[in-house]
Amino acid sequence: MLRRAVELFNRQGYDGTSMSDLARELGVSKSAIYHHVESREDLLRAGLDEGLDALSAAIESAAAGPGSAGDRLRAALRESVLVLAAHLPAVTLLLRVRGNSGIEQQALRRRRELDDRLAALVSAAAEEGVVRRDLPPELVSRLLFGTVNSLVEWYRPSGTTDPASLADAVAAIAFEGITAH
Amino acid sequence: MLRRAVELFNRQGYDGTSMSDLARELGVSKSAIYHHVESREDLLRAGLDEGLDALSAAIESAAAGPGSAGDRLRAALRESVLVLAAHLPAVTLLLRVRGNSGIEQQALRRRRELDDRLAALVSAAAEEGVVRRDLPPELVSRLLFGTVNSLVEWYRPSGTTDPASLADAVAAIAFEGITAH
Repeated sequence: MLRRAVELFNRQGYDGTSMSDLARELGVSKSAIYHHVESREDLLRAGLDEGLDALSAAIESAAAGPGSAGDRLRAALRESVLVLAAHLPAVTLLLRVRGNSGIEQQALRRRRELDDRLAALVSAAAEEGVVRRDLPPELVSRLLFGTVNSLVEWYRPSGTTDPASLADAVAAIAFEGITAH
Repeated sequence: MLRRAVELFNRQGYDGTSMSDLARELGVSKSAIYHHVESREDLLRAGLDEGLDALSAAIESAAAGPGSAGDRLRAALRESVLVLAAHLPAVTLLLRVRGNSGIEQQALRRRRELDDRLAALVSAAAEEGVVRRDLPPELVSRLLFGTVNSLVEWYRPSGTTDPASLADAVAAIAFEGITAH
């Protein structure tokens, strides 16, 4: 039910989706939904938490991983792509949040914590000498993870690109660029 | 007026913005607005056209420019960033369109034409041997311009990064990657 609710929020906007819309989408009564969740806000919070928890776990795991800071940054990039592919509706919902309510503002705070974690990984890789130092680490981090986030606009699990290949492609272009060698 | 209308659409969603909201935002009467435009749809169309016309002109100019296909691709990337910075509200509106009306579907068609144009530039640069050939050109194009599009999520003209530096940073990371040399 959560996945279908999140997909509906993504399609017509959270503010434009009522519990009646959701009941119609699921083909059940509103009271059947209220048997499982107390409110529409609960579904929003659960959808946002799904994306945030998965991204946090992936980035923490990458940051605590073996190898150099460059290796850990590459792992964080790859893992973020894999989470996005595995939790596409929840991550899409998360990336569209504008802070219109307490729940959304809480989600934006958690997103900023993740951004800070990623920027720290870029900084560490730059200090190590693996990542270029001619550009500010915050800018590099925003561009890298902006690329990852932009995948929600076109990536579909039913398409021809499998998640692992997509993760490899993002990491390859991020680290080595598009120039032929 | 168009700029303020587009900013309001971005803030609270086109579907959630009435002409009364816009009149309140501008501090004028609704009839004063109707003196200039026939409908809310006119403002949406004008906002979307502003972004599309600017991007089309930039990409056509880059594609017709001097140098190799690689040089033209780099110019298209840089010019797209400059258009985004100069027309931030209009490009933001354009990137949030979901196709909920005829006007939005028309805008999505023009966006797809631009995407095809950019993918053709990537293909030409790959055939020339400047751009790597181990990844599909459509994928490379989507990742590159996904990076550009993601700028609307955080870039603000009032910030510390000027548009030309931003364009250079995007092009540098896209072509050479983040690895230190």
